[in-house]
Parts: sequence; C-alpha cells; structure tokens
Amino acid sequence: MVENSKPNDALKRFNEAQEKSIALQYASSILFWDASTGAPKSGADARSKAIGTVSGFAYQLLVNDQMKKDLDVLMEHLDELSETQRVLISNTKKEFDKLTKIPMDEFQKYNALTSKSSMVWEDAKENSDFALFEPYLTQVIEYLLKFAEYRGYEGHPYNLYIDDFEEGMTVDQLNVFFDELRARIVPLLRRISESGKSIDTAFLAKLYPKEKQEKLSKMLLPMLGFDLERGWFKESVHPFTMAVDIDDVRLTTRYHENDFKSALLSTAHEGGHAIYEQNISKDLRGTFLATGTSNGIHESQSRIFENNFVLSEAFLGYLFPILKNEFEEQLDGLDFNGFYEGMNKVEPSLIRIEADELTYSLHIMLRYEIELGLIDGSIKVADLPKVWNEKMESYLGVIPENDGKGVLQDVHWSEGLFGYFPTYALGSAYAAQFAHYIRKDVDVDSCLKEGNFKPLSEWLNKKVHQYGSLKKPTELIELITGECLNSKYYCDYLEEKYSKIYKLK
Amino acid sequence: MVENSKPNDALKRFNEAQEKSIALQYASSILFWDASTGAPKSGADARSKAIGTVSGFAYQLLVNDQMKKDLDVLMEHLDELSETQRVLISNTKKEFDKLTKIPMDEFQKYNALTSKSSMVWEDAKENSDFALFEPYLTQVIEYLLKFAEYRGYEGHPYNLYIDDFEEGMTVDQLNVFFDELRARIVPLLRRISESGKSIDTAFLAKLYPKEKQEKLSKMLLPMLGFDLERGWFKESVHPFTMAVDIDDVRLTTRYHENDFKSALLSTAHEGGHAIYEQNISKDLRGTFLATGTSNGIHESQSRIFENNFVLSEAFLGYLFPILKNEFEEQLDGLDFNGFYEGMNKVEPSLIRIEADELTYSLHIMLRYEIELGLIDGSIKVADLPKVWNEKMESYLGVIPENDGKGVLQDVHWSEGLFGYFPTYALGSAYAAQFAHYIRKDVDVDSCLKEGNFKPLSEWLNKKVHQYGSLKKPTELIELITGECLNSKYYCDYLEEKYSKIYKLK
Repeated sequence: MVENSKPNDALKRFNEAQEKSIALQYASSILFWDASTGAPKSGADARSKAIGTVSGFAYQLLVNDQMKKDLDVLMEHLDELSETQRVLISNTKKEFDKLTKIPMDEFQKYNALTSKSSMVWEDAKENSDFALFEPYLTQVIEYLLKFAEYRGYEGHPYNLYIDDFEEGMTVDQLNVFFDELRARIVPLLRRISESGKSIDTAFLAKLYPKEKQEKLSKMLLPMLGFDLERGWFKESVHPFTMAVDIDDVRLTTRYHENDFKSALLSTAHEGGHAIYEQNISKDLRGTFLATGTSNGIHESQSRIFENNFVLSEAFLGYLFPILKNEFEEQLDGLDFNGFYEGMNKVEPSLIRIEADELTYSLHIMLRYEIELGLIDGSIKVADLPKVWNEKMESYLGVIPENDGKGVLQDVHWSEGLFGYFPTYALGSAYAAQFAHYIRKDVDVDSCLKEGNFKPLSEWLNKKVHQYGSLKKPTELIELITGECLNSKYYCDYLEEKYSKIYKLK
Repeated sequence: MVENSKPNDALKRFNEAQEKSIALQYASSILFWDASTGAPKSGADARSKAIGTVSGFAYQLLVNDQMKKDLDVLMEHLDELSETQRVLISNTKKEFDKLTKIPMDEFQKYNALTSKSSMVWEDAKENSDFALFEPYLTQVIEYLLKFAEYRGYEGHPYNLYIDDFEEGMTVDQLNVFFDELRARIVPLLRRISESGKSIDTAFLAKLYPKEKQEKLSKMLLPMLGFDLERGWFKESVHPFTMAVDIDDVRLTTRYHENDFKSALLSTAHEGGHAIYEQNISKDLRGTFLATGTSNGIHESQSRIFENNFVLSEAFLGYLFPILKNEFEEQLDGLDFNGFYEGMNKVEPSLIRIEADELTYSLHIMLRYEIELGLIDGSIKVADLPKVWNEKMESYLGVIPENDGKGVLQDVHWSEGLFGYFPTYALGSAYAAQFAHYIRKDVDVDSCLKEGNFKPLSEWLNKKVHQYGSLKKPTELIELITGECLNSKYYCDYLEEKYSKIYKLK
C-alpha cells in the first residue's frame, strides 16, 4: 500500500500529514487547557481517553511506512527545497528516527514504567522516602542508557538527551558553561552571605487581594508587549504558556495573597514565553516550525522579561509609584530603595522553584552534575541523597532536613526527563547575552524607566521571535550576537547587579 | 483489506471504533466549549481546521467497508446480543445507512450550500431582505427532497426529517397533536387578550446586578438536582448544555441586568437538560447510548424544570421571600401575587425565543405548518413572508413590521434543519404529560412549596434519565405513562394555569 515516492508527491503527502497533525495538536492542547483552567476532576477518565485517542491518531499520521519512504526521498532532494522545507523535512526525519529506532515494545514498557514511576515519586516525595523511588529511578536510567545505544550518539550518551531539548548543545559545552558559573557565582553568593547586609522583605508578605493582583497582571502584560486580543489570560494552579496558534496564545498565572512577588513575576515570566509565540512570522503558520526553537531559547525570553527587565532598577523605579498608589496601605512607609532591594533579595533556599535569580542557576548546576554522573555511572542512584546534600551545602550553604525537600523535590527524573534541567540555566545565560547586545541598538534603561517596552519587544521580535524554529538555537545566538553561548555576560550581569545591591567591594 | 466477519470479531471491532469515536466526540465538544466560553476570536481559523480534522477521523471510524460488513453481520445476529448491544447496533446501522445512501459528492455540495446559506441568512436577517435568502432556501429544500428519495421513506417525505430528531414521530401524529393545540390554545389566548386584565411587569426590568444573578443561579442549580461537582457552570452569549461525560456535564447561562427572568429561567432550562445527562446509568458509559434519547424528550426535561416546576405558584411562593431578601430594593412594595403574575404574564410577541410559556407553542405550530407545506409543495418559498405574516396574525394577533423580525428570525432553515422545530413543542407536551403522572407518586406541590426538588428529580432519574438512549421516545412515554403522546395534558395544564391567573370563567 506504500506508494512509490516522487519528490513532489512525497512533499504533498508530507504537507497533508503536517496539516492534520497540527490540527490534532491543537485539539490536544485545548484538552490540556480545559483541564488546567477549571474542568471538573470527575471527568478525568473521559479526558484521558480522549487525549490518548487523539495522540494515537497523531502518531499514526507521522509514523508509518509511507512517511518513512517519503522522508527518505525528500532527504535525497533537500537541495531542491526551500529553506523552510529543508528545515522542516530534516527536523521531521530526525524526530521520525528517534521514534522508530527504539523497538515499539520496549518503548511501551518504558512509558508504562515512567507513568508508574511518577506516581511512586509523588508518594516518595510526600513521605520523604527515597528508598521507595530508588528502584524506579534505577530502571529509568537503565532504559535511557539502552535507548541511547539504539538511537546512536557522538561522544557522551548524555549528549543525546541534552540535544532532545536544546539541539546542538553538548556535554563539552555545558561543562565549560557550568565551570564558569561555579567559579564565579558560588564565590559571589559567599560574599553576599558574608556582607552582613540584611534586607527587610516584610512588605512582600502583607495581604495583596487577588483582584488587585489580577488587575496589575492585566496591566503589565500588554505593557510588556503581549496582545491580550490574540490570546487568553487565566488562572491555574501551575502557571504555564500554551500557544495553540500564532493568534491564540494562552497563559496563566496564580495568585498568592501573602506573596506579592509570585504573581507579578510569574506573569512577566509567562508573558515572555507568550510574546515569543505571538510574534513568530505568519509565513511559518501551519508548519511544525511555528513555535519556539528550543527550551533554552524559550526560557531566555521568559527570563529576560522577568529578571533583566521587570526586576531591573530602572523598571521597578517606574512601577513603584503605580504600586504605591494601588497598594497604599501595604507599601506605606517603604522607600524605593527598600522596595528594589526587597524584590531582589538573595537568599539560599532548599527549593529550586522558590529560588531567587542568583541562586537559581546553582540549583540547576547541581542537577546537571548529578544527571551527568548518573548517565556516565560515576554516581550511583543509591548515593543520590548523600550526593545531593553535599552539593547543596557546598554550593548554597544549606542542607535539606529531609529528602522530600531535597533530592525528591522535582518530578522530572521520575518521568525520564534527563537533559531538561540545563536548559533553565541556559535560558538565563542567553537572556543576559541578548540583554548585553540589545544595548548596542536600544537605550534599554531609558525605555524601562518610562515603562516603554516597545523598542525592547520589537528588537526581540526581529532578532529572535520571528524565526520560530527556522533557526537552531546555536545558529540564532551566532546570528544575533556574532558569537556562541558565552556565560561571561550572565556572570558579569549577576556580579554587577548584586555587588551594587549588597555593596560588595 | 476488509476482514471476514464473524459476529464476535465484528462486535469487537465495533466496540473499538465506538470507543475511539466517543473520545473524538469528547475532543470536538471541548473545542466547542472553549470557543463558546472565552477563546479569542483571532484563533477561529486554527480552531475550525481542528474541528474539521477531528470530525474527519470520526467519520472514517464509522463509515468504511469493514464497518458496513460488520454491521450487516451483527444485524443478522441481533437476537444473540444483549439489549444494549441490540439498540446500539440497530441505531448505528440506521445512522450508517443515512450517511451512505446519499452520494458523497452531493452531500458535500449540500454542506457547502448550507454553510453559504447560513451566512447569507445572517445578512438577509440583518437587512430584512428575504429576496436575498430565497434562492438559497429553495435549493436547500430541493436537496432535502432529493435526499429523501435516496434515503427512502414511508408516507410523507417530511417523516424522514422528523424522525431524524424524534425517532418514530410522524406527520400523522404531529397533525393530530397540533390540531388539538390549535383548537384549544388559540382560543385560550384570545380569551386572555379579551379578559382586560393587565399585569404590571415593571419590576422585571429593574437593575439586577450580574453578580447577584449569578449567585442566584448557583443556588438554584444544586437545588434542582444538578451536581456542580460533576460539571461546570459558566457564562456564554447563547445558553447551552453540553455533556462530555456522565461525570462532566457543562452548562451556561447569560445575564441581562435589566431582565430578571432571563438568567433565572435559562438556568432552570439548561439545568433540566444537564440533570438528564448527569443521571444516565453508568452502565451505558462508553457507548453511544449514554446521552438523551431524542430532542423532544430532552426538551421535556428542560421545560418541566423551567415551566412546570420553577414557574409554578408553589415554587415561586418558596422563592419569593429569598428574592425579597436578596433584591430588597428591586422588589420593594411588590406582593407575591404581583410577582407570580409578572413572572407568568402572557403577551403575544414576534420573536419565538422571547415568547412566554403559552404562546411559545403557537410559534412552533406556525413553523411546523410551513415546513410541511414547503416539503409537500403546497407552500412556495417565494410566498413565505406573506404566509408567515398571515399565520402570525391568525394565531398570535401580531404582524411583524419586517421580515427580519418575521420569517427570517431563526437560523434553522438556512442550515437545512427541517423537522427540528416540532420537537420544541413536543418537549412542552411531554413535560406536561410527565408532570401529570408524577402526581400519582409524589405530592408535587408540597415539595415545590418547600423548595424540595429531590423527590421530583429522583422520579425523573428513575423514569426517564437512567435509560439514556436505550429506549426510543415512543417507548419511554408508553413505559412511563401507559399511553402514547397525549396533548390533552399539555392543553389542560395551560388552561388551568392561565384561567386562574387571568380569572377566566
């Protein structure tokens, strides 16, 4: 039943499959959105059947003998294709190989394992019982090593898993990257701790009514450059961004009435992701390329808005009088310096997702080192709690009182998500590198002092957003900054910002 | 590729297709819900592609050569199947024939026509320009007549289209039904108009803040028997009910701040539909039978809650003090009699969807007579505006000032929905017939006077809801009331209620 493939016919069939696949992806996304924004829990079984069925059809569209033949023919005729088509076909071929090189029965067993494993992890975390989780994590890692052999890799097997989330990134590059972070941020944090400066953050924990926080988020989003008319902003337990179309980009936040920073920063963060998706060139619409190019680049857009822009002295200076007016009572008696320092206080803590801008990357570095060790065998699963606590003490100066607040805090490993964590740190580093280069074209501080994000958004639209996935992350960085990833900008930025706040010599 | 069919294999394949089909139906429903409850308009193109793609897969699941063969085999072995399976297979076979007897290319042309036709209708309505719509309606009717020949029918070709929405109902039965309505309700309305009694409804048009109306609706729904935990209640432009699962039944209402009745009654109405879907036996879950059995029976459940229960003297007597407390200012100086009469005022009007309980069926009767005439050729499309206005004058005593408020007011015909309107009137008649028989088991008035719907909901759960589509509407009426549809109960109910309100002799 597989038809003989001529390039034109193959391309036509590919385009048809792509169109249907994107339509099914749309449906899956809406099911997820629905579930996350209020759908009754009692409908979970019906929903999970629907999600499974839609994914099944989507899989069959892209993984079949005809597609294999078509992709092979098209790969032989790449030079006859347009740039967009070339990238599309190469990406799809790569994805196809990834999905088909692993024997189906083993892949299904692995899926069953991770499904079980993440349930066990939840229990283990709640009861701070690492022994419960240990055999599952051991098996997950065995599968990842076996799959690496099926898939094939160059250099380190972990390269494969990094590449799944950040194409082109390697262990060698990450080692250099984290070496610099370790050499510069760990001492910086020590100097901050030893500076003796204490920052009062009591104002952050006063009562900020949800409605007023919501109003603030809805004022902030369009200011940053998000078009509320071409999207949907709602509330959910865990904030997230979901683009179902260039003209339908959805994002959520959550409000904690006794934590002022939480919603404001998560709105800015998700806003950055959402602005990326809204500004992809419409020429890419209807193709797999109409989405952000990698986890790291996506994270750079959320981080640049959250940290480099919103948490800057310039923008907080603009925002402060507005907030004073809106939250008169809560901010009574506070001067701008107290506000700015409170918003940017550094405090080593146990939990990654609650970490401040400076310590965040150290949480990531620790996870990277552990993932690498687990994959190359230099760290045993059984030793994880001990290794975790030692690294926490060494980098952050704190030790978790139990494994629930330590090695068991994140869901990622239970789901087999290795290679994902590093992209969080890459996002911050890319953000700092971009922020350095924006200054060559735009007077960033003057814009932020006036709450005028337009020149900043436009720069990012033109340099980053419009390309969607047409450029690989490495190409994009090179194109924009004329160099590859350079952690210097990130370390410089952190040193400068926090030396000033903590008055370090 | 079509496999030889043994009954067991055929049943297994049918069940698999059914499961996937229900999962895809779930996805389509959620896409509709999403679009109706706030999704950005700018995403409409992506959404319509997604809906089209999901429907395409759903169609292929049920309409294919294997399914044809399997259904034929199963139809030969019906006596070996369980009751549920028998009904399922017969229903699916009927649906299969309906979908396949019309040549695909003609059906596609017809779909293109109705899509265009409903857009033209929108224009025609807005500009009160029937001539614009006339050629499209003419073509729609030509198709319906041609399709009737393909599909085959007994007696009148219109029987086919009634049966699409109310299985087993025929022109002969509907003629008897509407004859009695014409004979009894038209004179009743005349006597009301001539009674000289005027009812003051000024209180209904005062300002009722949306938040307070919402609070009232959220109090009413669980009181009626709707389980808010197994569903979702939101706001939309047009109220509707949508069951995506027995445990996930969604409904909406809309709030008009200067029309107190609107949200209250639409909540009760949709609540009736929703309670039906929530109380279908879980044994039917996962089958096509886990939904209401027909349009008419579904409408009977919305009408019985809206009219026979909520608008009754007994329940409004219970509700009045609660409302007085909640809307002190708006209801100031109003006594219960004024409230009850105001809520039930009869007033012939031009627009069906704004009609009161008594005149509503006359709007339907008029549409039924016209549909019948259009199908049997006794009414020409070109004469429609004239026929419409004559009938409006004769039955309701009012004549529309233009066709936009007359013959063009409803979307149904532009979409080819013939045979749909009668089910609205059947709903009210079934409701009255059920309401008569409930009284044999339950002291309805005492319950309503205490706001205690539990015995009423339970009666309906047991007699109607649990069966889903396992029983045909005709079987259900017979089973519950021991007789077939009898319009006497409906006419008796209206005469009794309104004679009392209007003090008719």
